[in-house]
Amino acid sequence: MMSKLWVIKIGGNIIDHPEALGRFLAHFAVLRGNKILVHGGGKIATRMASDLGITATMVEGRRITDEAMLRVVTMVYAGLTNKQVVAGLQANGCNAIGLSGADGNTIKAIKRPVAAIDYGYVGDILPNSVDADAIGALIGAGFTPVFSAITHDGNGQLLNTNADTIASALAVALASRYQTSLVYCFEKRGVLRDVNDETSAIPEIRTAEFEALKTSGIVADGMIPKLHNAFEAIAKGVDEVCIGHADDLLLLREQRFGTRLIK
Amino acid sequence: MMSKLWVIKIGGNIIDHPEALGRFLAHFAVLRGNKILVHGGGKIATRMASDLGITATMVEGRRITDEAMLRVVTMVYAGLTNKQVVAGLQANGCNAIGLSGADGNTIKAIKRPVAAIDYGYVGDILPNSVDADAIGALIGAGFTPVFSAITHDGNGQLLNTNADTIASALAVALASRYQTSLVYCFEKRGVLRDVNDETSAIPEIRTAEFEALKTSGIVADGMIPKLHNAFEAIAKGVDEVCIGHADDLLLLREQRFGTRLIK
Repeated sequence: MMSKLWVIKIGGNIIDHPEALGRFLAHFAVLRGNKILVHGGGKIATRMASDLGITATMVEGRRITDEAMLRVVTMVYAGLTNKQVVAGLQANGCNAIGLSGADGNTIKAIKRPVAAIDYGYVGDILPNSVDADAIGALIGAGFTPVFSAITHDGNGQLLNTNADTIASALAVALASRYQTSLVYCFEKRGVLRDVNDETSAIPEIRTAEFEALKTSGIVADGMIPKLHNAFEAIAKGVDEVCIGHADDLLLLREQRFGTRLIK
Repeated sequence: MMSKLWVIKIGGNIIDHPEALGRFLAHFAVLRGNKILVHGGGKIATRMASDLGITATMVEGRRITDEAMLRVVTMVYAGLTNKQVVAGLQANGCNAIGLSGADGNTIKAIKRPVAAIDYGYVGDILPNSVDADAIGALIGAGFTPVFSAITHDGNGQLLNTNADTIASALAVALASRYQTSLVYCFEKRGVLRDVNDETSAIPEIRTAEFEALKTSGIVADGMIPKLHNAFEAIAKGVDEVCIGHADDLLLLREQRFGTRLIK
């Protein structure tokens, strides 16, 4: 039987709030099984850029990563945030090791080709981007990898890469060696039947039910691409994808964390 | 027989110059044997602090690391510089993994006690600070550790720590499992008989000769504490300490790199 692996992604709603982060790290540390943490950015990079007089250019809701902005996100994501998270986990007895995709060549990406928009130094993850051997070796040696949203192209170029995508790529790549759960912590208690009612989380959605939920309008807007990607990860071997609130993390153990997506 | 380990420290004179850094990384990548790279800071942190309106307070030539400055050095050393070095080594086929002392709990330090001067968040390394098992596991798995000058106290606090001291502590801790050479790359070709003559490097100094060189005045000023620390590392089991110019790195293979200090 394969051993258990949790790939857990947290976003800015946790990173930006020291108390929420502290609570999360204490919970993450006691969760049993092999673990990987992936963290997104938060507002610190935007604030840092602004303090340095660098203007963040956004196109269709996406940050354009020019050279100056790449330096900022590398400093903040791979430096400040990653090391604070690692030190916080160590204080909780979890042997965390902070990584970018360049470290150990764990995640290689390609600079997004310039089409209508030039996104700058943004990395896209290819199917064979993740080195499961390298990550497996770290986990096997007792380390808990903590990934920031920075990758590289293998030719010396660092790249800003979407943290949700990194989490999904890691879970898919490791699904052949571990019984893998992919967990997205966000600001809601799960996929809600009624967006205004935090108690209305749908406990479980199967692939076959997804279409009906879309058609009925229960799942809409920003949730559709999130779920689409989740079911894609499941189709590629991930055991389950769980979406819910960071504060509920330990409910994962009883399968009562937010919404659970399964085959 | 123990296998070979190089612990190589580079400073600001390389970090601050992209061309010198590129040359160094290409040479480092082809050096045979197990390797650890330790990098200091350079001027980027000072410039970044100044751009952010943070004033670097210096007392007796030492930077006081207040909370704002700790954030800057964590960003720059453990983020920007470390990841650029790692990506550069990967591009040269060297499987580098970037680490702070918090990562894998590899180097624990204690916040320097406040005496006449409060240095702020500066970490001092204790005799048992280095986890040789953890670092040995990484090297054994085929990774080349690249350390930035950031450590932690194990209770969640990151600490700014002297890179020369980190390199020395790593070499001493690993000397029982590897035949360890500690290499300091600096701006000169070695310990010079005549500071104005770059061709006057002393090829070899034995512990017993050090006192005579001090007495004669040939070794003076800033070089004395450097050599003192080097001979201390040798007394603690390090095989040799080599001091010279980064551009000469590959001369290490023929024992013709700068000045070689031995027992």
